[in-house]
Order: sequence, then C-alpha cells, then structure tokens
Amino acid sequence: MKLKTKKTLSVPGFKAGGVACGIKKNGKPDLALIVSDTAATAAGLFTTNRVVSPTVTVTKQHIQSAKSVRAIVANSGNANACTGTDGDRTCRDMVALTAKQLGVTDKEVLVASTGVIGVKLPLAPVKKGLPQLGGALSPKGWNDAAEAILTTDLVIKTACVESNGITVGGIAKGSGMIHPNMATMLAFLATNANIGKADLKAALKVANEHTFNRINVDGDTSTNDMVVILANGQAGNASIKKGTKAFRDFVEALTAVCKSLAFAIVKDGEGATKFVTVSVKGAKTEKHALTVSRAVADSKLVQTALFGEDPNWGRIIAAVGYAGVPVKPEKIDIAFNGTPLVKNGAPVAGLSVTALHKQMKAKDLRIDIGLGMGKASAETYTCDLSYDYVRINAEYTT
Amino acid sequence: MKLKTKKTLSVPGFKAGGVACGIKKNGKPDLALIVSDTAATAAGLFTTNRVVSPTVTVTKQHIQSAKSVRAIVANSGNANACTGTDGDRTCRDMVALTAKQLGVTDKEVLVASTGVIGVKLPLAPVKKGLPQLGGALSPKGWNDAAEAILTTDLVIKTACVESNGITVGGIAKGSGMIHPNMATMLAFLATNANIGKADLKAALKVANEHTFNRINVDGDTSTNDMVVILANGQAGNASIKKGTKAFRDFVEALTAVCKSLAFAIVKDGEGATKFVTVSVKGAKTEKHALTVSRAVADSKLVQTALFGEDPNWGRIIAAVGYAGVPVKPEKIDIAFNGTPLVKNGAPVAGLSVTALHKQMKAKDLRIDIGLGMGKASAETYTCDLSYDYVRINAEYTT
Repeated sequence: MKLKTKKTLSVPGFKAGGVACGIKKNGKPDLALIVSDTAATAAGLFTTNRVVSPTVTVTKQHIQSAKSVRAIVANSGNANACTGTDGDRTCRDMVALTAKQLGVTDKEVLVASTGVIGVKLPLAPVKKGLPQLGGALSPKGWNDAAEAILTTDLVIKTACVESNGITVGGIAKGSGMIHPNMATMLAFLATNANIGKADLKAALKVANEHTFNRINVDGDTSTNDMVVILANGQAGNASIKKGTKAFRDFVEALTAVCKSLAFAIVKDGEGATKFVTVSVKGAKTEKHALTVSRAVADSKLVQTALFGEDPNWGRIIAAVGYAGVPVKPEKIDIAFNGTPLVKNGAPVAGLSVTALHKQMKAKDLRIDIGLGMGKASAETYTCDLSYDYVRINAEYTT
Repeated sequence: MKLKTKKTLSVPGFKAGGVACGIKKNGKPDLALIVSDTAATAAGLFTTNRVVSPTVTVTKQHIQSAKSVRAIVANSGNANACTGTDGDRTCRDMVALTAKQLGVTDKEVLVASTGVIGVKLPLAPVKKGLPQLGGALSPKGWNDAAEAILTTDLVIKTACVESNGITVGGIAKGSGMIHPNMATMLAFLATNANIGKADLKAALKVANEHTFNRINVDGDTSTNDMVVILANGQAGNASIKKGTKAFRDFVEALTAVCKSLAFAIVKDGEGATKFVTVSVKGAKTEKHALTVSRAVADSKLVQTALFGEDPNWGRIIAAVGYAGVPVKPEKIDIAFNGTPLVKNGAPVAGLSVTALHKQMKAKDLRIDIGLGMGKASAETYTCDLSYDYVRINAEYTT
C-alpha cells in the first residue's frame, strides 16, 4: 500500500475547532470540538488507572451503547477528576450542552478533559464557549482543536495520511504522565473509512499497542487518558473486515498516524531535550523484550545520564538486571547510536569517550540492547529527564 | 526492653578504619575495613538485580560456606561491576590481600564495592592502601570507615544502640539508586551478641523488611547492594534463639539501628530537600498497602510536587489508582501532615492553599492515605525530586 503523508490535517466529512472559553487562567484555548457530518462508528482505549475521571466512564458507556457517534467535546485546564458527584454532573452537563447544540442525542457525544486533578470544573465557561465553538467549526479547524487540548505541551500534535481515498488523521496531547497503558494523553482520531465498530476497535488496538503503548516520559499514568477514533464511512469503501488486506492496509495507515502522534508526544515531553529509542533484541519472548526496554526507558538514572549526554551504560545494564526478566549478564550487549559499548557483559576496549560524548549531543538517540537469550525483540521510546522536567512539575498547580 | 542510643559508634571487640588509597580521583577516603577481634557469625541480604558485582557473589559464598567471619573490606569510587573475568579476579585478589594481612583465611573476609559500574577496578591502590589501613584500625575508627564507603553521599551514616550489655552498631551509604529490595546501598552492621548464623539471618530479615526495604530515592536498584552483619559473641550472653524474648529484643535493637541508617540514607538522597513518610492504612492486605505506598513514593510527579512544596494530591490519587491494587476511588482519603485534603475521593471544602503551602515548607512531610478497604497498613519513606538530583546524575561519570 502507498501511504501519502498529508501536511495539513483534514478528514472528509469532519469539522473541528477550538476556542478559549476561560477554564485556563491564562486565556489560552481550552475547549475543542470534533464533529462528523454524518453518523460515525467509534472505538476507544482508556487508562488502566483505577481512579478515573467521569469523562472516561461516560465516553466508554457511550461508545459501548450508542450505535453511532457524532462528536467529541474536550476541555483542557481541568481534568474533572476526583471531584465527586459534582464532577459526574458537570461531565454529563457538558455532554448534554454539546448534544443540544448539535441537535444529536447525548449518547452520540464523547467527552474528554485534561488538566489539574481534584479541582471542580466550572460549567459556565463551557456553556459560554460552546456556541462560539459551534460557529468556529471548519474542515480545516483541526489545528485549533489540537491547541485547545494542550496542557504543559509546547506544540500542537497533528498527523494525517491518505491512501486509496481513505484518510486517517488525528490530534493528540501528551507532556508529563506519559506511560504505557494510556497515560495523561488524549488522542482523537478520525477517518472517512467505512468500518464497523468491532473491526474499528480491533484496528485501534493493534495500532495503539505499537505506538502509544510504547512511549514513556515519566512512568506515571493518569486518570483521564483515552485514544478515541471515529469512522464516518464517507469514503464509500466496502466495509473493512478483520483478516482482509483492506484491514491490514487500514491498520497500517492508522499505525502511521498513531506513531507520528506518539513520537510527537515524547519529543514534547516535559523538559525533554532528547528522543530516545530503546531497542531490545535477543529476548526469549516479546514480553521479556518489552519489559526490559521499559525498565531502561523508565529509569531516572538512565534518563538523567541521557540529559547529561553521558554514555553511562552501567545504569542501562543495572536497569536490564532489575527488570525482572531472566538475563545472563555475560551475554548482554549494549550499543549507543550504533557504537558497541558492551560485548558479553564487559566493556568494549579502546573506546573514545570524547567521540561518544560528541555522538550523544544528537537530539535523536538510540540504545540497542542484545540479551542473547532468544529471538524476540521490542522497542520503546522515551526522553531524557532534565532540569526543566523538575521545574515544570514543581510549579504546575501553583 | 530499654534501648540506649549511643552517640558514638563502637562495638565491643570490633575495630574499623578508612583511608584514601587512590581509587577516587579527588583524594577522598575510599578503602574501609571492619575487623572482629574474634570469630564472628555473619549474615547478609543482597541485591535482587540479575546483574551483580563479583563482590556480591563472593560475599554470599563466604557467608554461606564459612563457619565464621573476621572482616569486611570495602572500597568506594568503583563498583567493580560488569568488568568481566578481570573484575572477578580483582575482587578475589582484594579478599586475598586482606586475609593475608589479617592472618585469616580468604573465606573469613567479606568484600563490597560501590561507585561507577563498568570501569575496571585497579588493584594497585588497594594493595598500597591495605597496610596503611591495618595501622589505622581502631575501636573508634567507624567514622573513618563510614566516610570511606561514600560515593555521592554528603554525610557519613552511623548508628549504635545498647541494651543489657548487647551493642548493635553499623554504618551505611546510600544516595541514588535507592529502592526497596536492596538498591545502591551498603550497610555493615556489627554486634557483640552471641547468636548463631541462622538466627542472625532471621533477625536481619525482619529488621531489613521494615527499614532498608521501605525506603526509596529514585526507584532504580543496583548491582552491588548488600546489608551484612557480623556477631562476635563477646557480650557473653546465652545464644539468642528465634522465638524467644531475647530474639525479639535483639530484633528491636537491630531494627532501631537499621531504621536510623535507612532514614539517614533517604535524608541524604541525591538532591533531597525533604524526608517524606508515605503511610497507607485501610488496605485489604499489608502487601496491598505496601504496593500503594511504594507507587506514591516512587512517582516522579509526586516527588517533584513535594520539591515544589505543592499540595498536589491529584498526583497522589493518580498513583494510588495505577498501583495495580483494587481500590475504590470514592473511599480514598488523603491527608498532608495531618490536614485532610481528600475525603471519600473528593476534595475537602474550604482549605486554605496558603496554609497548606506553609505546612509543606517543613523538612519532614507526611502523606496519609486511607483506602477504606480493610485493616492492613504499611509505611515507606522517600524524598523529593529536585534540580540537584538531575544535576548530580547528569554529571556523575563525566
């Protein structure tokens, strides 16, 4: 399949927009809306946190019970989490107001919130902002929507691909609390493909597993995260069924969009100065490879060494050792950006530390770990841990 | 039992000392020796990391196979880990040189190293330093020994208690890589109690579980960690047996020493500005309570909020939620330094943020979490994540 990457995000039959309604104290955009012109199938994946925002509960319910969906409404600046029954009501009111304005049923509206936890979300700004947002909706309004869902993110995140008349696009927000299994991240995806609910969910699961579920910023997971996709069928293709070539093609397109958004999230991680691929090969099982890769990617000591541009493989091998997977130290290989540092558990002789330091000044770094235990492999993606990560998170609510 | 805390560490029948032998480039003390005048029983607990220094392997072997032990030799400035068969040889040579000097067998010598991983430990400084160290040994030399095992630690860590003629004392080093299950920490304990090997190990396990295994600095675990105790029986007491009051008294004394050292490690954690107790009550099982407490204590987001003196309980409840233990959000209570912030999963009304901020300026902070699921509880101890943590770890090897 030939995948065409589109610079500008737009998906046939969808409109999007974003406005500043006043939830954020700094006057930045904080209310986003994505609407399909016609009925769309929907699928979603949600945080595994046991404490969840009502937005997660409601969106799950609506996807499960509604035959089709028409819109996603989302706010930033407040996560509407841990605010008791008031929070539940605000969430349902936000849905009802959106549904009323669009002339659809409540169940046809999905909802998301992101921001500070435990502070009541005021309904008044949403009420005031929605009509304005309705007027601002446009097929090219995705960038505004992408901006209105940001919290400590620095840049908007959008992606779009097209192939054989089928377009897949989406927006995301990330920053801190990024961890496999849905962290503080939101991703809203849209496609004009004709695909049923179950097949759409199956496709989303595969795409998510190798993209959003492989990234890590700080290992924390949040109460609000979701990846949601709407498919409005306007491409007029025969309904895509699991197990067919059309399904594989669709998964490929969806994966490309998710990967682009996931990488953008890591690159814009709080205080991140490096994008780091942690590749593990030679594992007994893919699960082992993934566990080791995540242990290395999530190590504060590895992340600070990367920030310091220090080829400190000792911390990497220590993380490999505590990952909880059987390894043989004398079989472990480690390379930084293609330069072998460790062979069979011992340092490679004659390395120039100066040359290594120079290599590590690159923005994109790669750690290759060979376990010598089997043939399975996995990759995860992370960033470094910098002064700015501490600054941003020490100052967030205050 | 009345436990007397002693300001100066000394244990009858033990001598200790420390010298600068030249492993550390900055000329600071880096070689420590602890010697019992007479045969001592020994017990140890070791890192669970699958990649370990030969010092861990050798010390384990010696404790297992030797009837009694006479000395512990330890160096800082180099972990002698991941340096292949050369490292194994250096470790055994270090033991042999010490044994020869003391006129004991190799098996009667335990060995430890701490410092950078993956760099060959030179034997020459050890060879040169040992005779000097032999001359410097003294019953009051523990502070010198404590200093010679430090890496990025800022202060020496010693503790000593006495009761009914039985003294328990010890030294420790910590700093980064502190995590339950033995992180980059060393603790060398000594007692004049008369207690057999198996009972000594049993006592050490209990004491360790509630002290060293409850502290956390950065969640990383190391290749070199050990807690080792020698008991030389010079108190002349009847041999302490598990299940007796004498055993419980001994465990109490040992726990007091381990707790003092463990807390000192957290307080001197890399960049730490706060000592934080994370107490979880109302759990179904102690394991649940411990899992939740550790998730909160290890969260980068919680640790940075503590550094920022920010009562951001949203991050705490998020960590409770992702700990992996069944919880009911609507039953969760959270208090900061005794002030309830969350009751039944929702924020307490009418709190003064200014007053809370003021409270959080204290050096000692306490987070109380109630799960409302049962009667089990657990506490762990952590510190905050500061700019200095990043600075220290970004600059460590370079």
